[in-house]
This record gives sequence, structure tokens and C-alpha cells, in this order.
Amino acid sequence: MTAPLINHQVRLAKRPDSIATREHWRFTTEPVAKPAEGDVLVKTLSLSLDPAMRGWLNDARSYIPPVAIDEVMRAGGVGRVVASKNPAFAVGDTVYGTLGVQEYILIAQADIRRNGLVKIDLNVGSIGQWLNVLGMPGMTGYFGLMDVGQPKPGETVVVSGAAGAVGQTVGQLAKIKGCRVVGIAGGAAKCEWVVDELGFDACIDYKADVPGGGAVRAGLKEHCPKGVDIYFDNVGGEILDQVLAKIARKARIIICGAISQYNNANSMPAAGPRNYLSLLVNRARMEGIVVFDYADRYPVAIAELSGYLKDGRMKSKEDIVQGLDTFPETLNRLFKGENFGKLVLQVAQD
Amino acid sequence: MTAPLINHQVRLAKRPDSIATREHWRFTTEPVAKPAEGDVLVKTLSLSLDPAMRGWLNDARSYIPPVAIDEVMRAGGVGRVVASKNPAFAVGDTVYGTLGVQEYILIAQADIRRNGLVKIDLNVGSIGQWLNVLGMPGMTGYFGLMDVGQPKPGETVVVSGAAGAVGQTVGQLAKIKGCRVVGIAGGAAKCEWVVDELGFDACIDYKADVPGGGAVRAGLKEHCPKGVDIYFDNVGGEILDQVLAKIARKARIIICGAISQYNNANSMPAAGPRNYLSLLVNRARMEGIVVFDYADRYPVAIAELSGYLKDGRMKSKEDIVQGLDTFPETLNRLFKGENFGKLVLQVAQD
Repeated sequence: MTAPLINHQVRLAKRPDSIATREHWRFTTEPVAKPAEGDVLVKTLSLSLDPAMRGWLNDARSYIPPVAIDEVMRAGGVGRVVASKNPAFAVGDTVYGTLGVQEYILIAQADIRRNGLVKIDLNVGSIGQWLNVLGMPGMTGYFGLMDVGQPKPGETVVVSGAAGAVGQTVGQLAKIKGCRVVGIAGGAAKCEWVVDELGFDACIDYKADVPGGGAVRAGLKEHCPKGVDIYFDNVGGEILDQVLAKIARKARIIICGAISQYNNANSMPAAGPRNYLSLLVNRARMEGIVVFDYADRYPVAIAELSGYLKDGRMKSKEDIVQGLDTFPETLNRLFKGENFGKLVLQVAQD
Repeated sequence: MTAPLINHQVRLAKRPDSIATREHWRFTTEPVAKPAEGDVLVKTLSLSLDPAMRGWLNDARSYIPPVAIDEVMRAGGVGRVVASKNPAFAVGDTVYGTLGVQEYILIAQADIRRNGLVKIDLNVGSIGQWLNVLGMPGMTGYFGLMDVGQPKPGETVVVSGAAGAVGQTVGQLAKIKGCRVVGIAGGAAKCEWVVDELGFDACIDYKADVPGGGAVRAGLKEHCPKGVDIYFDNVGGEILDQVLAKIARKARIIICGAISQYNNANSMPAAGPRNYLSLLVNRARMEGIVVFDYADRYPVAIAELSGYLKDGRMKSKEDIVQGLDTFPETLNRLFKGENFGKLVLQVAQD
């Protein structure tokens, strides 16, 4: 007899009003149960940390239910099957799914679909790439840009959070589609990387100290002389308003997130986009996207994007932090703009 | 020899910061010049007074240039050709076009297109109807609802300014297309008329004193139990935010105007729609419309709408005020919500 596996977990202890700190989480341990018929036991390797997680902590109607108090924190991730009584999964399979912020997850047959558990091929992409360009951020960027944005060659695409997970996919994909691409990111290092490594045409450092105060306004004026045809918005707030003031006729604004607002009480923006009537003047459109709606078409997007990764037309940058116990502080790096590339929490070495 | 015709005109004297009052206008008189080759002389019968006029007074980039200081105030209207040296127009023709707030306009051949001068048939509709359901408000409602909104039978359509010119067309047309229609209007009389005469399913009186304060919130909860599929927004402000909180999955919001905001300095909303992230949660779309984009298709819409007027499925209510000299106060009835139906300034009896 071997000792049972011990599962370390991070659970929601109480709901934060603004930023979630260590006091809002509870660290628990429990033995891992033995798989029953149909079960799959997955060992977590790496978890995706995403801005949307902050929204899941609020007791508010949204596109998925909030994480319940005492529930293991929801997270997508890559893991390895370590035991299986399910014919669809074998020990050693690498899988992607909603694993949660924990070391192990035992998934019953009935929950496999709900957890989105699917086998992935590490020959197609690395674990990091499967959490980034080939994962939820990449899918979000792909369908947001292609389906909602509908880019045409020569159009000007602006993307905020340009060095983040979604932003890097959007910008690189827009370049591949023949657009002029202007990123918005925080800090000179990120901006340089976006232009030099990812090949964006320009990147506006929203933190730059520009005379007159408006780094974004000045940057848009300089880099988007014909206005903005597509704006992929990951940040909301003042930057959204600045871009609204510069949209072109028939512009499309993709509302993917509003990271600047997520730590307000209840995730509600402190103020809405004051310039929204620019939509009227410019016959423009602002549309929200939730990636899960496109699940049936993920394979198409993955096939296309993995091709670009292979042939070097697209890069995937991850910012990997180790250790389940760092979860509370690591998550908050997103909201401080400290991550550089897709933020990944490595729970176990592969 | 007869004495020359005298033209009374209303010109913009200075730009208002908030509501335009008599001091912002200047009344002028000048003799009417004789038509030269290609000219058409039109006598104004009735003018359309519209919320958009307030926006034209601001020195700001918009979908058309602002009215210049000392320029005759821009207005669309119906007139009669009283002299013509243009083969396309004969004395006695009834015409629609940008006539301006004045008794006569002499239009040169080169300006006929810019002024949108077209012959209209009073057998198809009355002068009032040509300024309402068959005019710009009707065209705005038609293309906003049909092209941007894309209504499907059984969907819930909410329209603000329901008793106004655009709102009455939108709501009646949505009923004809098989939708459930809920209006929002100010005052019990308008709401009763919208339901009893126009056949809306319900109408929310935003001025009603509802316990808890939120007449619109309570009304939407009662009348839109499945959420709002299409919102046709003529008012902006707090009402837009309340509807955003109640939109259904894949909702379409048509941004047609924001009359609640037009008298702010520079027509900029004091605040944007705080609930705009509801677009994300509900994968919904907010899109602006400018009616002039659909000019090529006006005849199609007029043919359809005049059919509904003839067979009684659609009604057209105008609020007619007489006298060019009342223009400053009459225009402001729009912003006070005092008009009941399409506001028309009758300059001369037909």
C-alpha cells in the first residue's frame, strides 16, 4: 500500500471588495480519492492566470457563475493524466481543462465536458503555448479579431494590453492579415518588445510622461493618422475613451475586457466611456466577446495559429511563476501590469 | 413690376454652451433674388425640428459640419416650387430638402444634390407624414431597426423617446415585424397614447414616481422578463444604463441619439454608460447609425412605410407649431420633452 496523494488547494475564503489579497484565500490539503469507474485523475502542471479571474470572485451575474465561497478557485490549465478508469484518457496523456488552483483533480465521467477536458499534443505546442496562443487567450484574440473585428488589409488595428496574452496574439495575427498594428502597453520595455520582437508597427507607452499629459492621445494622433478601424480593448477606462475619440468611419471595437476596472467594487466601471457617441458620429460598432461561444471552432483556430508558431511568423511569450503557494500575489501581478507576456503559474515540473 | 419677395430668416448668432435661447439667434430679412439659369426658388411650407439640430450648433467634429455663425440655421423641410429655371422642377411641385429656417430658398443647379432637393407626392403622404414617418425620422427608425437591429419575430424591442418622431416609427414597425415592443416615454399621456393608439405592448413612464426611485428599472423588470433583444436609444444617459443592465444574450443596441445629453457643453455626455461591460457578458453589440448613409435606399423604405400608413397599420402623429418667429422656443420643446409626436414648424399654410 502506498500513502494517498495529498492535494494542496487554494479556495476562495471571502469575496474581495477591491483587490484580492491573501486574506481572501484559504489554503487547504486533502487526500486524493481513488478513481472510480469513468474517473480521470489529473496532476496539474501549469495554470493560466487571467484578468477574468477577478470577475469570477464577485457575486454578480456574468457569463459564468461566480466561484462559490470555499470552492477551489477556478482556473484553466495543463495537466498530466496520472490515473484513469476512463477509456478516453490514458495515463501519461497531456490534457487541458478547468483544473482549478490545486495540485490534483479527480474528474468524473459526467464532469469531463463541463471541465472542458481535452487531450493536447505537446508536439503542436509547448505547455506555455497551449496556455497562451493556443489556449484561451489565443482563442479570444483569434475570434475577437477575426469574427467581430473582421480585419481588412491596410486597416489600422489598435490593441491595448499589447504585451499581454490576448494582445500579443491579436497584434501578430492582425499583422499577418495585412493590417497596420499599433499596440498600447505599459512601460518602455514592453513597447520595445512589441515592436522589435512581435513586429507591431508602433506601440504607445501609456505610462510615458508626455508633455500635456496624454501619452495615449498623442500616440494615437501620431500613429493612427487615418483613425482607428479596429480597436481590441482589454483595458477599458480612460484608454477606451481616448481611442473612441479617434475611431474611423465604420470602426469596430471589440470589448474583451476592462482590466483597469476589475478591482472596483463589483467590477463595475467607475465611469463609462464618455465618448461613446463617437459610435454614432462614425457609424461604428462596439461588441462584446466571450470566447466560450466559439468552442466548436477552436480546432480551426489552433490549426492556423500553430502553423504560424511553427513557421516563426508568430511568437508566444509566457511569464512563468512557480509554486501554488504564490497564487494570491502572482494573480495580482496582472492588475499591477507587472506580467510581461502570458502569466502562467507552474504548479509542478513536467 | 412687382415688389421683390422678402425672405425672413433665422441665423445662428452665437454658439450656445448649454440650451440655445433667443439670444443665440438672429432674425434677418433680405429680398429674394431672381432665379438665374438652373435655379429653383422654393417657398418653405413646413420645417422638421429635430434633436440633432442642437448638435449642429457646436463647433465640433461630427457627421456633418456645424452651422456657421451668421449662417441660416439648417433644417429639412417641405416646400413648394414658386419659380424655376431648372427643367427638373416645375412651379407648383412639392419638394423636400434642406431648406433652412427661412421662408424662401433659391437653390442653384450645383446645390440641388447637396440640399437633397427631391419632388414628393402628397398623394403618398401629407406634408406632416413626409416630415415624420416618410421623412428623416422615419428613415432613421426604419434603417436603424431593420439594418442594425435586425429584428426577429418574438424578440423584445425597447425604444426610448417612444412618442417622438423616430420612436413612433421604430415601435410600430417592430410590432409589424412580430416583436414584443416596450416604449419608454415621459408622462402618462404619451405612454397611454403609445399603447392605446400605436399598439405597443407596454410603455414605461420614466417620469413616474415609483417607490424605490427607478421607474425605468422597475418597468423593464416587469415588461421585459426575458431581457431586451433590441434597444433603440434616442436618449442616452441614465436610461441607456438601465437598459444595458437588462439586455439579453446577443442584444443589439442602436445608438441613434442622446437627447438627454445634447445641451451639455459641446454635446459631450456628462458620463458614459457605466454598464457598458454588459456588452461583454451578453456578447452584445452597440452601434451608431447616421441616416444619410442609407439615402440610396430611402425609396424602398418609403414604399414600405407608406403602404402601412395607407392600410392603417401605422400612424403618424405630428405636433405642429406655427410661425417662423417661434423657432427658438419651439426647438426647445424637444429638450423639455414637451412635444407630443414629430415636432413640425409650419412656416406657411399650403
